[in-house]
Amino acid sequence: MFIPPLAPVYRHKGSTLAHDCAAATSRLAAAPDGFARRRRATPRAPLRMRHKHHGHREHTVLEVRAPSKTYPILFYEKTCMNDVAAFAPFIKGRAVLIVTNDTVATFYLERLRHTLDNCPGVDSVEVFVMPDGEEYKNMRTLNAILDMCAQARLDRQCALVALGGGVVGDVTGFAASVYLRGVPFIQVPTTLLAMVDSAVGGKTAVNHPMGKNLIGTFYQPEAVIADMSTLNTLDDRQLSAGIAEVIKYGLIRDATFLEWCEANVPRLMARDPAALRYAAEQSCRYKADVVAADERENGLRAILNLGHTFGHAIEAGTGYGSWLHGEAVATGMAMAAEMSRRLGHLTEADVRRVEAVLTEANLPVRPPPSMTLETFLAYMASDKKVVRGKIRLVLLERLGQAVVTADYDRQVLVDTIEYYRKLYDALPRDYERRLAHLRLPTEGERDAAVAREEASSE
Amino acid sequence: MFIPPLAPVYRHKGSTLAHDCAAATSRLAAAPDGFARRRRATPRAPLRMRHKHHGHREHTVLEVRAPSKTYPILFYEKTCMNDVAAFAPFIKGRAVLIVTNDTVATFYLERLRHTLDNCPGVDSVEVFVMPDGEEYKNMRTLNAILDMCAQARLDRQCALVALGGGVVGDVTGFAASVYLRGVPFIQVPTTLLAMVDSAVGGKTAVNHPMGKNLIGTFYQPEAVIADMSTLNTLDDRQLSAGIAEVIKYGLIRDATFLEWCEANVPRLMARDPAALRYAAEQSCRYKADVVAADERENGLRAILNLGHTFGHAIEAGTGYGSWLHGEAVATGMAMAAEMSRRLGHLTEADVRRVEAVLTEANLPVRPPPSMTLETFLAYMASDKKVVRGKIRLVLLERLGQAVVTADYDRQVLVDTIEYYRKLYDALPRDYERRLAHLRLPTEGERDAAVAREEASSE
Ligand SMILES: NC(=O)c1ccc[n+]([C@@H]2O[C@H](COP(=O)([O-])OP(=O)(O)OC[C@H]3O[C@@H](n4cnc5c(N)ncnc54)[C@H](O)[C@@H]3O)[C@@H](O)[C@H]2O)c1
Ligand SMILES: NC(=O)c1ccc[n+]([C@@H]2O[C@H](COP(=O)([O-])OP(=O)(O)OC[C@H]3O[C@@H](n4cnc5c(N)ncnc54)[C@H](O)[C@@H]3O)[C@@H](O)[C@H]2O)c1
Repeated sequence: MFIPPLAPVYRHKGSTLAHDCAAATSRLAAAPDGFARRRRATPRAPLRMRHKHHGHREHTVLEVRAPSKTYPILFYEKTCMNDVAAFAPFIKGRAVLIVTNDTVATFYLERLRHTLDNCPGVDSVEVFVMPDGEEYKNMRTLNAILDMCAQARLDRQCALVALGGGVVGDVTGFAASVYLRGVPFIQVPTTLLAMVDSAVGGKTAVNHPMGKNLIGTFYQPEAVIADMSTLNTLDDRQLSAGIAEVIKYGLIRDATFLEWCEANVPRLMARDPAALRYAAEQSCRYKADVVAADERENGLRAILNLGHTFGHAIEAGTGYGSWLHGEAVATGMAMAAEMSRRLGHLTEADVRRVEAVLTEANLPVRPPPSMTLETFLAYMASDKKVVRGKIRLVLLERLGQAVVTADYDRQVLVDTIEYYRKLYDALPRDYERRLAHLRLPTEGERDAAVAREEASSE
Repeated sequence: MFIPPLAPVYRHKGSTLAHDCAAATSRLAAAPDGFARRRRATPRAPLRMRHKHHGHREHTVLEVRAPSKTYPILFYEKTCMNDVAAFAPFIKGRAVLIVTNDTVATFYLERLRHTLDNCPGVDSVEVFVMPDGEEYKNMRTLNAILDMCAQARLDRQCALVALGGGVVGDVTGFAASVYLRGVPFIQVPTTLLAMVDSAVGGKTAVNHPMGKNLIGTFYQPEAVIADMSTLNTLDDRQLSAGIAEVIKYGLIRDATFLEWCEANVPRLMARDPAALRYAAEQSCRYKADVVAADERENGLRAILNLGHTFGHAIEAGTGYGSWLHGEAVATGMAMAAEMSRRLGHLTEADVRRVEAVLTEANLPVRPPPSMTLETFLAYMASDKKVVRGKIRLVLLERLGQAVVTADYDRQVLVDTIEYYRKLYDALPRDYERRLAHLRLPTEGERDAAVAREEASSE
């Protein structure tokens, strides 16, 4: 197995000037850890990075240029929940509506409410608390949020603030996009997944009994304010699920970033704020990059779905809920790597690296033994990515470079799926042990999260 | 009273070539009736007009350039409901969902369904029939349409077709904009108001108990297909309400078009298809023009609200439902003209012309005597157009040119409203007689509409 040299993460600390894209990139290139970032020649750079001090809270800023608007993603290592200066620039109206869920509310609502209340010009801060859970990301919750907007007589001089993970972000963004045909909204993501994935790209959605994310809009926030310290209360499984998406960007876009992940997964797992900030920022950069490129280059965006077709089959095949999406994607990425090896793109060592970095992040790399070949193929074929009967897959041409294709020998797909069955048959105990942690967090784990939060907010 | 010379409408009949904007405009300038159209110097012409024969059905085409897409509005004088060639170019998918209401369905649904069924590549045509009425333009109907889309498992290769007036158009456009984050949709407006107003501009909406059109999106159709013959079944009051909007464009944009209206209201009332087509086309042109200019020139779009602030007060003050929106707007326009005269912009003769053309179209030009000064001012102040305590109004600088302003002597507004009170006090019987027709259509009128339709579709 290939183990890269353990390298320190490049720290942005101490920087005080605003930098443009080129300057930021050259700073990165000169980073002491040698993780030089290649620059990509894009006709219109979608991103610009600035480093800022304001008050005493240091943060970095990534500017995302969407077709309809340019907005910043701000990354704070230390909590900004008490920091009026962090929010005030993006609150232009008199009325604010915070949307959150009952889990996140217990940790952060009062502080954020107080902070927003103190933003200049703000007269009223209303709160909408939804129940925790993907099953509440639906039209009913959307309606209830819209009712609250209307009853509070919000006009366009308002702001909706989404405080929570991807569920809260998706439904709040949807509400903001349709209330008065669009009012300002701000994302305050509190899961790693929301920080690295749902915050960027402008997709909003709710689920429908007939399918996930079936209804929604494209709508950009005024700003995304990512406070790394909120991840202290996130349970380990959710954190790992977010790390799966971080590793994904390394696999599809940048082998150097993959190396960084290999070296730094332990720091991410330990919630080292600097490592989390760097991972989140790089991930947002890759996603924004791919999304922006897709305006021209139709289909590139699909590479963001590495591991998703296999993963979707696992989520559906296990009845949803027992595997987190990020866990299913992790296994899906391992399977895509294995299939890529069988097609001659990756080496055995490459596949072991993929499995190792995911395993290090406490993520599964084997499908559940209950998944038969038939189940896999049936669910994969029902996925949206089927083109003229062929399942379109994201595969790896090499580590750091993905390719989307429906042009492969179908037998290789069958062999890949059956390979795991053989692994199971050979060593069933060992195989099952690897998947044993796929259960919901215990009370004890929740308590530990609360303790961590209390320590961090002192 | 000024009566302009009766002039024939300029006919597009017989033209077979596609024309660009300049050519179309010069043709209009050379029109035999002398209604030369001034060209406006816009940096980016939002419209292009083509004249087309296809099959045996003649129609004209106006191309609307919205920021997100360019789409055509097609104007048919003779019915196109049986004409596959009219619809097929805009149906790219395999599945079609027609949304309509139970009134319009009785007249046009079966023919349209059959026609869409015969479009090449179409496998299935589903139908959603909503109850007739503004009160069904709500989130519940939106949800029901989305449920139908999901249950029919529509993918992006589909088309939603809105067959009806502004209510059906608004809610269907909203559904199309959020299902799968946007699927193709086609407007088939069947009221004059929908043809001249809601079809252009890309606004979709539903109402909320707290306010009209509170929730919606901006979304453009693939095409608008306006079949003048459908207006044969529309009742007279609804037709007149649409004519109010047509006259509005003359008042705010083009004195020459106003003259055309003065000469041709009887033909519009008699449902002369050529006159209707010309009026609809010119109206769409003006609206698209104003909407496109607003991208640059912030606020111009507000001139489209001529008569709306007074009208809104009348609709609200009379409890909605007894006055149609277009009727309230007509009276509002007469009031705005009267106020413009008092401010020294219009002559007495100008005001009489405005009243005459509206009266000719069977539209009211006097507020109901139940409306007191206090009621007016209270409802006008609650309108969205209040800027720092001053009611922003659309007034007329001269016939054919509107101006939006909150900078006028408030006493003139008070005097204007009180003027009608004095008129009433002087001749109450005469005043009331003018408003007597503001009642719902009788059974007999509905039957007459059916008879007209049967005659026209032979
Ligand atoms: N819009 C997009 O482009 C996009 C992209 C990816 C995923 N998504 C959507 O995002 C959703 C998944 O997002 P998610 O993984 O953030 O799920 P989530 O929002 O359900 O959050 C996961 C769990 O963590 C809890 N939580 C959140 N923040 C916490 C904190 N700081 N401390 C303690 N607990 C916390 C939540 O209450 C929840 O129980 C899905 O609905 C998915 O469809 C959207
Ligand atoms: N989107 C926009 O920009 C915009 C602009 C203006 C108005 N609107 C909206 O449009 C709606 C008003 O539109 P409308 O005036 O068309 O009302 P409508 O859709 O309610 O139609 C009026 C009546 O005519 C009936 N009808 C429609 N076509 C008919 C036909 N061919 N024969 C017989 N009966 C027919 C309808 O069933 C209804 O009873 C309002 O909800 C308003 O908010 C939207």
